[in-house]
Amino acid sequence: MTDFRQQALDYHAKPRPGKISVELSKPAETIKDLSLAYSPGVAEPVREIAANPEEAYKYTAKGNLVAVITNGTAILGLGNLGPLASKPVMEGKALLFKRFADLDAIDIEVKHRTTEEFINTVSSIADTFGGINLEDIKAPECFEIEQALIERCSVPVFHDDQHGTAIVTAAAMLNALEVQGKAISDVIIVCMGAGAAAVACMELLIQVGAQRERIYMLDRKGVIHTRREDLAEHKKLFANNTDRRTLEDALSCADVFVGVSGPDVLPPEALKLMNPNPVVFACSNPDPEIKPELALAARKDIIMATGRSDYPNQVNNVLCFPFIFRGALDVRATEINNEMKVAAVHAIRELAKETVPESVLTASGVGHLSFGKDYIIPKPMDPRLLQRVARAVAVAAVESGAAQVELPEHYML
Amino acid sequence: MTDFRQQALDYHAKPRPGKISVELSKPAETIKDLSLAYSPGVAEPVREIAANPEEAYKYTAKGNLVAVITNGTAILGLGNLGPLASKPVMEGKALLFKRFADLDAIDIEVKHRTTEEFINTVSSIADTFGGINLEDIKAPECFEIEQALIERCSVPVFHDDQHGTAIVTAAAMLNALEVQGKAISDVIIVCMGAGAAAVACMELLIQVGAQRERIYMLDRKGVIHTRREDLAEHKKLFANNTDRRTLEDALSCADVFVGVSGPDVLPPEALKLMNPNPVVFACSNPDPEIKPELALAARKDIIMATGRSDYPNQVNNVLCFPFIFRGALDVRATEINNEMKVAAVHAIRELAKETVPESVLTASGVGHLSFGKDYIIPKPMDPRLLQRVARAVAVAAVESGAAQVELPEHYML
Repeated sequence: MTDFRQQALDYHAKPRPGKISVELSKPAETIKDLSLAYSPGVAEPVREIAANPEEAYKYTAKGNLVAVITNGTAILGLGNLGPLASKPVMEGKALLFKRFADLDAIDIEVKHRTTEEFINTVSSIADTFGGINLEDIKAPECFEIEQALIERCSVPVFHDDQHGTAIVTAAAMLNALEVQGKAISDVIIVCMGAGAAAVACMELLIQVGAQRERIYMLDRKGVIHTRREDLAEHKKLFANNTDRRTLEDALSCADVFVGVSGPDVLPPEALKLMNPNPVVFACSNPDPEIKPELALAARKDIIMATGRSDYPNQVNNVLCFPFIFRGALDVRATEINNEMKVAAVHAIRELAKETVPESVLTASGVGHLSFGKDYIIPKPMDPRLLQRVARAVAVAAVESGAAQVELPEHYML
Repeated sequence: MTDFRQQALDYHAKPRPGKISVELSKPAETIKDLSLAYSPGVAEPVREIAANPEEAYKYTAKGNLVAVITNGTAILGLGNLGPLASKPVMEGKALLFKRFADLDAIDIEVKHRTTEEFINTVSSIADTFGGINLEDIKAPECFEIEQALIERCSVPVFHDDQHGTAIVTAAAMLNALEVQGKAISDVIIVCMGAGAAAVACMELLIQVGAQRERIYMLDRKGVIHTRREDLAEHKKLFANNTDRRTLEDALSCADVFVGVSGPDVLPPEALKLMNPNPVVFACSNPDPEIKPELALAARKDIIMATGRSDYPNQVNNVLCFPFIFRGALDVRATEINNEMKVAAVHAIRELAKETVPESVLTASGVGHLSFGKDYIIPKPMDPRLLQRVARAVAVAAVESGAAQVELPEHYML
């Protein structure tokens, strides 16, 4: 671990600090080049954009530029360490946007006193970018922030910790249930955790067929039920009219466990309370709610997923966020709406059912992958994700009326 | 001109929109790479920065990152066209930062209602960057904005339209006066224009020896004098206790004309009122206050400079801003103070007195350059500027106490 720690620090520090740079995309060698790039030539695109703001997409980098914005209040599993400390994570996210979807992404860390101040700051600079990815903002403020920014900004705003997690979880869940022979409309779901990711995951599962009244969400105090009077707004939507109170109560005869909480909160014994052929997603990272080896020792009929790359079925946001922005920006979508999210769910899901190319096997360090218990979701290194997911999102944007331009030719089938 | 217009538009639009991109500065191919760049490895630099904010310079791109920030209220000579229309100019500036000083620069266009809102927005995001270059913000707001941001931000803030212009103008002026055999403390200076650039130029000339009472500044209403009651704060400092009222009054027996106003406001006849061996800087761009051919036809004994690349003696901010930021960031300066600005003046000035390498002659499309009437300031393409100016600025930062780290080895002589 010390070794890995030092490797991680060295990776960030050497040979130069950080992980991203800004580069020129146009020639800038000669006096002529510079007279086109800056004064006097630059006046021409300025005039065009002043006359028609849409021309910014033609003459500037805006249309391919994503801002990764945070206030540093919920950094990874590390908590509220402030905006500056979050910078390596935000640069890391920018790196992933580039690596997986060729999007130019730049991190912005915002220092603020009030939620309103954060919202004002982000909406003031929003037009600089083609889209805004909110990141590592704690609940419940993240809900108000995302909603306000969606209303105020003309470019798409997406809180990845909520919706990226939800999309990938939903894709994996639909496939897991298919393998286990269960219908999503029938299953009883236990959701351990009641933060931003938990709420978004459950809302999206409902969008794709789950029944709200069959969901038992738990926070630190146990099951969220209709007689509790301590519930924040975002939890009230999941208050269940039930007598179940503890995790064990909730798990009795449940089909699905989704953990978006913390390490080791699911005792192996409790797994035995669940229905036959259950689905267990232990997404807390890096330490899941239950270690896969303990879960599988407790019972053999489960399908297990985690957030980790060293176990099968990694539920990882990188399967979604680069591609949902790629698709949204490619049709200049004004928002990332439910139709686009659901389209991403199905695109990711369907890809897991196809034959996996040799190159993906090699990159993933495995010899064989076929749809089933140990492969319900594509690997992050699967290069097919870009075209499939981005295209599905772009098509959904066009069909739902969120797109401002037509589907680009390379998405035509 | 139509041809140039189309070339400028094509340059911006093809083969991809805009002039800058974000690229990876670290490997991101394998699962191992990604585990270092993002989860779980990224937690290590996060913890280091949380414990000691200075570590952000070691583990993130912050220390080499400049934000080019505007509100679009004074775009080039085009006026207040709003933030979005300014984006090509800001990207152009970012391109110049990279091209000339290998700084990563990203543009941020800010939409705002009040000056206070602009200041709040910029100060909220300032820690993301190693320095902030303010650009194309109209007077008089720019003075309040720059002052407030200098006070609120821990990174250097520099309004290039003021201080970049002033530094290059002062460097060229000292050399022009040397060639004409005049002492700066003796000369009478006429400054046509009373905006941000004019005020900054005159203040810096005073720093390097000019006498405030020998400066006649003119706005649209004529000479700014002590009996005028219509003067904004920034003009009051230049109210002269004089009976001179018109441009012609001011030019009588003047030694220096500095134009930072608009095209063709200086009639050739008026030049004849000036003292022998005058200096005429007609910096309005692209059309100067007087065309050099007209000025030189009116009298032979002048030294003439403009903002244009197609005449000798181009007073161009690019001689300064990339290098002043390079020097400031290299010693992690907390501000860009007067000592650093004056150091830049002298470094630029001295370079014009040295033998010009063949490569600079070729790049500049000229056969010969030697210190004198037609060569008082280095050419923008002179690669020696980087080391000379940046080093001088870094040394001045260290000596004036603005630096937070020692002079890097490559600046040691």
